[in-house]
Amino acid sequence: MTCPSFADKPQEACGVCALYAPGCDVARLSFFALYALQHRGQESAGIATCDGRVAYIHKGLGLVSHVFNEDNLHHLQGQLAIGHTRYSTTGAVRLPNAQPYLIETALGPLGIAHNGNLTNTPALRRDLLQRGVGLGSSSDSEVITQMLAGAPGQTWEERIAAFMQQAHGAYSLTILTRQAVYAVRDPWGFRPLCLGTLNGDGLVAASESSALGTIGATFVREIKPGEIARLDAAGLTTWQAMPAAQPALCSFEYIYFARPDSVLEGRSVHRVRRLLGARLAQEHPATADMVIGVPDSATAHAIGYAHESSIPFGEGLIKNRYIGRTFIQPDDRLRRLGVAIKFNPLPDLQGKRIVLVDDSIVRGTTSGPIVALLRLAGASQVHMRVASPPIRHPCFMGVDMATREELIAARLDVEQIAQHIGVDSLGYLSQQGLEDIIGPEQDNHCRACFSGHYPVPVAIGAAKDMFESS
Amino acid sequence: MTCPSFADKPQEACGVCALYAPGCDVARLSFFALYALQHRGQESAGIATCDGRVAYIHKGLGLVSHVFNEDNLHHLQGQLAIGHTRYSTTGAVRLPNAQPYLIETALGPLGIAHNGNLTNTPALRRDLLQRGVGLGSSSDSEVITQMLAGAPGQTWEERIAAFMQQAHGAYSLTILTRQAVYAVRDPWGFRPLCLGTLNGDGLVAASESSALGTIGATFVREIKPGEIARLDAAGLTTWQAMPAAQPALCSFEYIYFARPDSVLEGRSVHRVRRLLGARLAQEHPATADMVIGVPDSATAHAIGYAHESSIPFGEGLIKNRYIGRTFIQPDDRLRRLGVAIKFNPLPDLQGKRIVLVDDSIVRGTTSGPIVALLRLAGASQVHMRVASPPIRHPCFMGVDMATREELIAARLDVEQIAQHIGVDSLGYLSQQGLEDIIGPEQDNHCRACFSGHYPVPVAIGAAKDMFESS
Amino acid sequence: MTCPSFADKPQEACGVCALYAPGCDVARLSFFALYALQHRGQESAGIATCDGRVAYIHKGLGLVSHVFNEDNLHHLQGQLAIGHTRYSTTGAVRLPNAQPYLIETALGPLGIAHNGNLTNTPALRRDLLQRGVGLGSSSDSEVITQMLAGAPGQTWEERIAAFMQQAHGAYSLTILTRQAVYAVRDPWGFRPLCLGTLNGDGLVAASESSALGTIGATFVREIKPGEIARLDAAGLTTWQAMPAAQPALCSFEYIYFARPDSVLEGRSVHRVRRLLGARLAQEHPATADMVIGVPDSATAHAIGYAHESSIPFGEGLIKNRYIGRTFIQPDDRLRRLGVAIKFNPLPDLQGKRIVLVDDSIVRGTTSGPIVALLRLAGASQVHMRVASPPIRHPCFMGVDMATREELIAARLDVEQIAQHIGVDSLGYLSQQGLEDIIGPEQDNHCRACFSGHYPVPVAIGAAKDMFESS
Amino acid sequence: MTCPSFADKPQEACGVCALYAPGCDVARLSFFALYALQHRGQESAGIATCDGRVAYIHKGLGLVSHVFNEDNLHHLQGQLAIGHTRYSTTGAVRLPNAQPYLIETALGPLGIAHNGNLTNTPALRRDLLQRGVGLGSSSDSEVITQMLAGAPGQTWEERIAAFMQQAHGAYSLTILTRQAVYAVRDPWGFRPLCLGTLNGDGLVAASESSALGTIGATFVREIKPGEIARLDAAGLTTWQAMPAAQPALCSFEYIYFARPDSVLEGRSVHRVRRLLGARLAQEHPATADMVIGVPDSATAHAIGYAHESSIPFGEGLIKNRYIGRTFIQPDDRLRRLGVAIKFNPLPDLQGKRIVLVDDSIVRGTTSGPIVALLRLAGASQVHMRVASPPIRHPCFMGVDMATREELIAARLDVEQIAQHIGVDSLGYLSQQGLEDIIGPEQDNHCRACFSGHYPVPVAIGAAKDMFESS
Repeated sequence: MTCPSFADKPQEACGVCALYAPGCDVARLSFFALYALQHRGQESAGIATCDGRVAYIHKGLGLVSHVFNEDNLHHLQGQLAIGHTRYSTTGAVRLPNAQPYLIETALGPLGIAHNGNLTNTPALRRDLLQRGVGLGSSSDSEVITQMLAGAPGQTWEERIAAFMQQAHGAYSLTILTRQAVYAVRDPWGFRPLCLGTLNGDGLVAASESSALGTIGATFVREIKPGEIARLDAAGLTTWQAMPAAQPALCSFEYIYFARPDSVLEGRSVHRVRRLLGARLAQEHPATADMVIGVPDSATAHAIGYAHESSIPFGEGLIKNRYIGRTFIQPDDRLRRLGVAIKFNPLPDLQGKRIVLVDDSIVRGTTSGPIVALLRLAGASQVHMRVASPPIRHPCFMGVDMATREELIAARLDVEQIAQHIGVDSLGYLSQQGLEDIIGPEQDNHCRACFSGHYPVPVAIGAAKDMFESS
Repeated sequence: MTCPSFADKPQEACGVCALYAPGCDVARLSFFALYALQHRGQESAGIATCDGRVAYIHKGLGLVSHVFNEDNLHHLQGQLAIGHTRYSTTGAVRLPNAQPYLIETALGPLGIAHNGNLTNTPALRRDLLQRGVGLGSSSDSEVITQMLAGAPGQTWEERIAAFMQQAHGAYSLTILTRQAVYAVRDPWGFRPLCLGTLNGDGLVAASESSALGTIGATFVREIKPGEIARLDAAGLTTWQAMPAAQPALCSFEYIYFARPDSVLEGRSVHRVRRLLGARLAQEHPATADMVIGVPDSATAHAIGYAHESSIPFGEGLIKNRYIGRTFIQPDDRLRRLGVAIKFNPLPDLQGKRIVLVDDSIVRGTTSGPIVALLRLAGASQVHMRVASPPIRHPCFMGVDMATREELIAARLDVEQIAQHIGVDSLGYLSQQGLEDIIGPEQDNHCRACFSGHYPVPVAIGAAKDMFESS
Repeated sequence: MTCPSFADKPQEACGVCALYAPGCDVARLSFFALYALQHRGQESAGIATCDGRVAYIHKGLGLVSHVFNEDNLHHLQGQLAIGHTRYSTTGAVRLPNAQPYLIETALGPLGIAHNGNLTNTPALRRDLLQRGVGLGSSSDSEVITQMLAGAPGQTWEERIAAFMQQAHGAYSLTILTRQAVYAVRDPWGFRPLCLGTLNGDGLVAASESSALGTIGATFVREIKPGEIARLDAAGLTTWQAMPAAQPALCSFEYIYFARPDSVLEGRSVHRVRRLLGARLAQEHPATADMVIGVPDSATAHAIGYAHESSIPFGEGLIKNRYIGRTFIQPDDRLRRLGVAIKFNPLPDLQGKRIVLVDDSIVRGTTSGPIVALLRLAGASQVHMRVASPPIRHPCFMGVDMATREELIAARLDVEQIAQHIGVDSLGYLSQQGLEDIIGPEQDNHCRACFSGHYPVPVAIGAAKDMFESS
Repeated sequence: MTCPSFADKPQEACGVCALYAPGCDVARLSFFALYALQHRGQESAGIATCDGRVAYIHKGLGLVSHVFNEDNLHHLQGQLAIGHTRYSTTGAVRLPNAQPYLIETALGPLGIAHNGNLTNTPALRRDLLQRGVGLGSSSDSEVITQMLAGAPGQTWEERIAAFMQQAHGAYSLTILTRQAVYAVRDPWGFRPLCLGTLNGDGLVAASESSALGTIGATFVREIKPGEIARLDAAGLTTWQAMPAAQPALCSFEYIYFARPDSVLEGRSVHRVRRLLGARLAQEHPATADMVIGVPDSATAHAIGYAHESSIPFGEGLIKNRYIGRTFIQPDDRLRRLGVAIKFNPLPDLQGKRIVLVDDSIVRGTTSGPIVALLRLAGASQVHMRVASPPIRHPCFMGVDMATREELIAARLDVEQIAQHIGVDSLGYLSQQGLEDIIGPEQDNHCRACFSGHYPVPVAIGAAKDMFESS
């Protein structure tokens, strides 16, 4: 839940939703669902709807609240909708990359909203190009769109199944067609996707359960890996289109991505974070006067640590809420004050021994300045505790973490990292600890970034862009 | 050369250009070429370039001078470029419709800039959709792009030829590929397209010869109907890909569209307009004190009429140059003053007998108010002369004229039109007169809007949009 | 009527209007009046209205059509209005300089729209500062506003008269108060200002009579130098607040500024321009095949020359209407083609001897490239004729011409200028010729830029800006 | 620290700063100081600088990070600067109201940045208008500017003192002149203002000490009520220009406005908030399972309550960080879900007895929906505790609270409020409790909104706007 331009955090790719809501303002419901998924991507937002005949779309760069107004919402007619909010994994923030994509096909209009990343995109692109399809972007989501447009089968059900046979990697998709919306989850279940009902006969799918609450929907269940859900006038129809692979929900949904008020696999995300903090306290106790979290994402972990350790929880860092995107850089004097522009220490740290809890460390660029701030504010000791294991391997399933070279834990051991960031002690949650809390790896989660064991084959290096635009 | 929102004129679809210019700033040259073609479309502009490996693109809504700046020009690297400036025939002005289109294909990057309108778009779309290609817009230019991406043949030459076998209607195309740019003209030659050399080994194609002059290029010749020109390191290569059909250059290029300083089929456009005015004077003489033209497009025709008739040429109407696009409407009082916001009569018309020359009348909505203005300013007689025949049939080759019901000459005869617009006499140039000046119909021009004889089969009604966006 | 960024023309400061129009949409009328005065300034536009109690204002940068929309027009309630359209004489185009100014005073709201330039601004500023008034800009129009706010007298009539006693230089003012609008012209009458009636009991004042026609008003008469007109429920009241000085209407209103369809001092501007051209033909005949004017401003002068000389009038240069404001500069190759981006020669100049008529030459930067263009197009001889005398002295009354050093005729004699711009012959209208056509200097016009005889004392150099903003 | 469009909080008017920083990039320092004061106003931001001769200014609407870029910062030369960030108390957000104001006066440039509200503005305006000064806005800050411009005295020191004699109410001012910047605090000290040193010979004044830390300055002391500080090449000079009145620092600076990491009157704001929470626990204990705060402003109060009561502190409500400004309104269904768009309850509240701590209640519009949310999430009991006394009286010193009619505690007693918002119990901090923590009323704080005892005479109703602009 932090600002991409400053944070040393993994970055989630997207939030998606799908609605069948007859007799409702389906665009407005989609707007508020996206609003609740805003933490999953702040770079663009879009909604596509269909009235059973014609499809409509509006999308734009920026926050959901910025992209939509009464005028463009009003334009989005119908009882079917899909929505998307995006964090770019590819750098440039440009309108052509905004989703949903909406095209015309032999079966009528087709809209796609995609969360995740295919791992065999280069091969799939090659197939499409050989089939004589021109591709207008380097996005794997356009690849999905054209694959569905040209897949064998005279029904969307057949075509989606055909697509799933070919696609490897992470995809939680919502799909708009003339008569139905679909929600589809890859056989590994890398990214979350759940179902709900709207009072009366409405149906909704969304990346997180918290979005259901926001629009007054009732949570039904998560979509299973490899499952397709169709939401239409016939109600909710689901079927297992592919056998579920070894389940591999991304561990970082628990650690950082998902909203704390969401429920994943039947568990409260907020509660899991408190438990991670508590386990961390067991594994790496400290003698200290106060436990503080790096705001805002590590607050729950810090509270868990505090309860378990009986060290009082406190606030130690204030985060500037109004930071916006600025290109103004501090000059040298200000630079020496480092991260103080985003975080400010409270004045009552004088002489205190501090446990500083963070949810994760990626590049290690933020931790050092925060520790320096605490010391400047008078902290006598700083013991850093991280509520996830060291990140040593890049993600190929759609999370923007960093290259292997940038990952601090891929280069340095814990002792060296402690020195690098200037703490008196440093403790990471163990992989075992993580497994005990969120379930063992052989069971149901992807922890490739910690362990290097990828659930699907991955290839280093991606298809070269053949064109660019500005 | 008038503002779309006020003018009672046919509207041209686009201007295109293509350049091979090693050692030059090819994007800057394209910019100035588009600048010179601005009169052919003011709604969007774009340039795509290629450096032999990667292709680059920038496009946007508005005038060429508004869309481009040093930053985005600088981004457009390479020695190959195509450019496009657009007038929308489809109403909404939206970025996704801006050209060039740029896609990746099995043969590498492919860029398209299109002037014209295919007459068998619905059938071509159906073919593409059946082939499993999803289409992102209702534009026939996207259809061309995907047809080329999927055409049989392993070279662009083969693919362009294959496309030409299937496409009916008007297309002056410029095409960007990794190693060459192409300029292609349909077998009827509906829209102009010509070739030039840049000093040294540069080559250029553009809709009008005036664009060559602006960038310091030397006119070579027009591209022949059915011909393809390739511009690349091997120099200029041209071949007849299709046998030329009955040539059918749009007559309105002479009458109104082209810049007066352009040369078409070896003839100065400005001189043809003077000759049309002179012929009009022979066919429809008048006893009057002054000849005036409706500014700015009919000035040459009026000068021709004046010289032939020996009635002095004068200025009678002043046109507000700064009119911009406004949505402010006059209220009833101002509405009774009609067109006075755009045109103002000069005060020395008192008691004068006026010959008012216009190049064409489409709906007849502007002529009446202009005549009323002249009378209000004291003109004792107004004799209207139109330097083209009555327009009685809609255009299907990419000119936005009006529906048949809107064409005043399709509903009323000349006598009725004269009454409707309130003139003392009205004379249209005869079809024979037009033929004598620009060449007979069986020879080389499309005059379907006057005669109803279409050079290609046309079908009333177009494919229904399957989706909309806002 | 040319684009400030390219033209070698003197630049007028502003257009103003004032309306009393009970029962009308006074803001909409003002909009169309400003629309008709757009040629007098394209940098900002504004309207202030008053409903007898509260005053309202909207202003912004850009064209009138850009600044106003239905929403902000609707906000401008009342039956009294003033309007302003501005050309900046001071370089930076900034919103704080947009007019009208609207302030609260002890007598209620006060709005000011000003065309002209005071010549004793530094002294007036000093007086205000000494009186303890802070000034928020370097504009002389703010000085006028604060002078009126603090002038002696309990009525606006007294205060305006008191202001006129102190102010020297050019001011055609429109003033908005709670109960009336006023139109005020300086005792020299430097800038035009005229009165009209709107059907029923409406009244209007405007810089030019052409604006009256546009809104359906009837021209009554010009406001006399030194006169004040009050427009309110009591009808039109005028009185001579100052004795008229030696009248000194700016000659350039006739030569270039005013719209050709305006009437000044009872004479059609267009007709005066034709007469200037005819006199020029008498003074500087030429043996040639065609007379052309530099578009658009010199067309009338060229027609006058052609009629008088019996050399046919023709078009020789086409002006790109869509030029916009661009910061893209030609590179060296294009630069050698010079002015070709704005003007293009017609192809039928081959072997022709051309008389090129322009209305004036200021810096001489445009003429040379135009002549080169004509020669490149094949003209065998180019005889330049200028329908005004050489400009040798800067203007201090609000016209942005150039510094003395920049004025080509202040540095070079006619022979040298001819050489500089590369013509076969060059002839300027004589001062006597100008006098004969528009009236002798001792009579009623300012011709200081030709003669150096300023009607008011002027001081070189202006008050130094004490602050800047961006 | 919440978004004005949603929050039921009092709203602070502004943050100000002043710097003398020779050899530094004074504009960049000002930028970061304003950045740190952003929580005091998000509607506009501005900086004015002076290089000893000329003054420069840039200001705009929106966040500090939005208003400034390298270009406009670079323009702001000099070693003296003042800055301002604004929350509008008057509704419309418009550029003319952005501060600082910068004018020219008889003593040179004068810039003003103002935090507070004068209580005798109508009388002061009347004086200025009678003196013949026109006023361009309804802002009391423009009144201050013109009062200083016209005050008796030949030095700024004399003039500022003269101004202070006449002005009543709240003003923490920073003032830019050619040779010095000044920081001035009204005799009551309603709004905070403190002094610091920059390494070397730099000096800074700012609304809050947290801004000093951000730019690497060292806190010196607060400016005393009635004191003037001059910051210039002679160093820091301070003097008591007016005898301090009964000190009256706004209590809400402690309760809500100031950043928790600021120090006021020698006390950590964060610590005071914890103490207020602890006192609240003593006054209104509860039997409960968890203490939660309304995020983000009540977190410290809640932690204080939790520590004192030994009830565990927890998170119960998640606040959407990306809320932006939206005009999309929920429809009826969504409206029944009320505040859920901004806040979401965590799922583990099931069966819990909750103490909900807020810092204050103004209109009572937010509390009810939050309580409903908690109950919906399964809370079995909700005991609301408010860390300030009931607000029963409006503020006239620049805090935008509400009219008396809107204040819920002015209409209802505590029992009724508890019923209105649907809590099991409700306890407000007592006035005595507040006094005990932050000091007794007769001592040094304004608590007029609780007690109705205003430190200065106030008049209901303000000067009617005489004009509006859009």
